[in-house]
Amino acid sequence: MDFNEQYGPWALIAGASEGLGAAFADECASRGCNVVLVARREALMEETAAGIRERHGVETRTLVADLGRPDIGDLIASVTDDIDVGFFVYNAAFAPQGLFVNVPLEEQMQNIAVNCTTPTILSHMLGKKMVDRGRGGLVLVSSGAAHGGMKIFTTYAAAKAYELILGEGLWDEFRDRGVDALGYVVGATATPTFSASTEADAVKATNARTPQQVAAALFEQLGKGPRAYSHPGADEQAMASAGRPRAEVVAATGEMISSVWS
Amino acid sequence: MDFNEQYGPWALIAGASEGLGAAFADECASRGCNVVLVARREALMEETAAGIRERHGVETRTLVADLGRPDIGDLIASVTDDIDVGFFVYNAAFAPQGLFVNVPLEEQMQNIAVNCTTPTILSHMLGKKMVDRGRGGLVLVSSGAAHGGMKIFTTYAAAKAYELILGEGLWDEFRDRGVDALGYVVGATATPTFSASTEADAVKATNARTPQQVAAALFEQLGKGPRAYSHPGADEQAMASAGRPRAEVVAATGEMISSVWS
Repeated sequence: MDFNEQYGPWALIAGASEGLGAAFADECASRGCNVVLVARREALMEETAAGIRERHGVETRTLVADLGRPDIGDLIASVTDDIDVGFFVYNAAFAPQGLFVNVPLEEQMQNIAVNCTTPTILSHMLGKKMVDRGRGGLVLVSSGAAHGGMKIFTTYAAAKAYELILGEGLWDEFRDRGVDALGYVVGATATPTFSASTEADAVKATNARTPQQVAAALFEQLGKGPRAYSHPGADEQAMASAGRPRAEVVAATGEMISSVWS
Repeated sequence: MDFNEQYGPWALIAGASEGLGAAFADECASRGCNVVLVARREALMEETAAGIRERHGVETRTLVADLGRPDIGDLIASVTDDIDVGFFVYNAAFAPQGLFVNVPLEEQMQNIAVNCTTPTILSHMLGKKMVDRGRGGLVLVSSGAAHGGMKIFTTYAAAKAYELILGEGLWDEFRDRGVDALGYVVGATATPTFSASTEADAVKATNARTPQQVAAALFEQLGKGPRAYSHPGADEQAMASAGRPRAEVVAATGEMISSVWS
């Protein structure tokens, strides 16, 4: 089936100013789908939108908004009420860093807002319309962090688990209603944010894929199951890890994180 | 080490009017630990507290509160500011039921408040004091639902995953600071709520354990790792399930849920 017939005519990508979100938007647009971008950073996002229009000749809309806002549903409704959003990728993330008891509670709350509350609100709003239309796609971008407790990123890992398990549950509810839902487990990606905050050697050591590779891998796997992995072999790694004692798994993750985090 | 030396002199059990929460409180009190109970249902909770005082001769405090309230941290601080809470069990739960797009958004938000926000707030507040004291125990009660997407209970399963992964991460951060944190995966338990909402034959079919068995199993496993299971064999089942294709796992869960849910 044609991408636009199943997922068009508009895609909404939340968290799309650059990097991975921009790559998801570009993949949609390259299939002739118009895109709505939502992100905090206006200038970057406008540049991304202009590039998409230029390369693919589709329409774009942009909304500047913090994805942790409690009124985010209303804001997004206001820019999408007159169009059919047939594809939704929730790519926003907020990651407090530091030992749990030292991270200010406000950051822990922003983590829940951006990584749990908003994807729930938007999946509810946009998912309902897709189910009513009998077609669509809905992707919640999670992370390998979702697979186990993670020191220093304790609540981020927890919230990414929320997204992954919600995406899987929606797959089961939506699959006989024409809508492909997915929890997408994204591994290390050489986004501008990641590259800026990490030594070049460390970026290399993580086997980071490019945003384009990660976005392309989504479209290869969409509609085939409740969960997909951005990196080849990551599913086998996750299965192997799930078969080991939890203390070993969590401690090994903690050692890895402690070694790269400063 | 004596329980009270490591985890006393007060335990706080959130979600403790009856059933599992009352059983956790009783286990603490049987070890000479005073208990603070927090729950919505005053009469039931007062009865539970009176029984605990009578059986074990410890002090009790109670706080009537909805655990989804945004000011829950202040409320709990007001009844614990003059005592040392060395043990914390977060047992509260709220579970919206129904197809995701049909469940009102307010219920989805209450699910996040009760199952994600409040355990984060209370772990932050009480965990910080435990770490400062260099001793304590902190248990986030999760569920087998956390292991995969779950139709009809989509956001509940997601939020239970948040609690499980947060509990595991706190284990790693707290373990060299004298504090035992744990994500506790509780299977079918014959609580009053469960028994009232489920046919007697179905309760039997789930191999439900009693609240007392589930509470006792916690104390046998505390301090031994980031995650523990209430039911014998549940860890092996979870591992086996994690090794199977996700579509199979999630679809099987969905079929099971659909068959018992009405």
